[in-house]
Amino acid sequence: MNELYGGFTTKECEYCSIEGFYGQKILETEYWIIFLAPSQRYLGTCVVALKRHCRDLMELNGEEWEEFGKIVKIMEKALFAVFKPSLFNWSCFKNAAFRSENPKPEIHWHFIPRYKVPVKYKGITFEDPDFGHIPQPVTREISSEAMDGLLKLIKSEMNQYI
Amino acid sequence: MNELYGGFTTKECEYCSIEGFYGQKILETEYWIIFLAPSQRYLGTCVVALKRHCRDLMELNGEEWEEFGKIVKIMEKALFAVFKPSLFNWSCFKNAAFRSENPKPEIHWHFIPRYKVPVKYKGITFEDPDFGHIPQPVTREISSEAMDGLLKLIKSEMNQYI
Repeated sequence: MNELYGGFTTKECEYCSIEGFYGQKILETEYWIIFLAPSQRYLGTCVVALKRHCRDLMELNGEEWEEFGKIVKIMEKALFAVFKPSLFNWSCFKNAAFRSENPKPEIHWHFIPRYKVPVKYKGITFEDPDFGHIPQPVTREISSEAMDGLLKLIKSEMNQYI
Repeated sequence: MNELYGGFTTKECEYCSIEGFYGQKILETEYWIIFLAPSQRYLGTCVVALKRHCRDLMELNGEEWEEFGKIVKIMEKALFAVFKPSLFNWSCFKNAAFRSENPKPEIHWHFIPRYKVPVKYKGITFEDPDFGHIPQPVTREISSEAMDGLLKLIKSEMNQYI
């Protein structure tokens, strides 16, 4: 198991993954792991993955929901503090898993900050060409240096709200 | 306030609304109202709306999350019992509200059953042409008779899981 990437594989998941993994780990709680998504079309996009296997959200127990609610608060507060997005999109889709003949969906949430005005980070401009509409499954990679900086920035900010 | 439609307005919300409302009320709990969405491109599409005004999910309290978790269980079990969808998509987007100059987003979840194989209801065939991919914001209306029957069927099934 790759410690950095949590060992998850969700090949070609629309919003989060480009190389068959959820991304680099930001934080881990008792029931969930927060990853920085490989695709940063929407700056600050993260994935929140359940640490045990569940096919559907109906299988979650009360403690997992309670902790998820706390994670939502931490993530929205942290992202708002650093980049001031206009709103946050949350989704649990799992569609990509069903492109295979033998689907093995895993519970993971897409956390997608959305921006009315462009935001700059490390000299890179992030527009949100789809603002006011559903997020598009279009991959945007940034340099590994920019990803590392972003990871540290978001991690440090999230740690302040735990 | 319109009792049937809960008095909500979310004009042109991508997945749920075609006439500026969330739909016909199926069930009401202490903190949430479940509506049958006006658009039935994906058979059984519902909206789960918070009964108080919140702009972002970070404002939800523990009791609201706990009750939401129970609602998720009721809805997935009920829909699976009647139409056997392959999976369920959940999202809290609020994008449409931001198309206006003075956005007033409300917390509402889109619950979208997805189907690998076509399903028939009252002689109408429902395909899922986007199966394996994100749900498309394309409106599909069905007759008011079919909507009324669907409402009763889902309501009756959900009541068995409360």
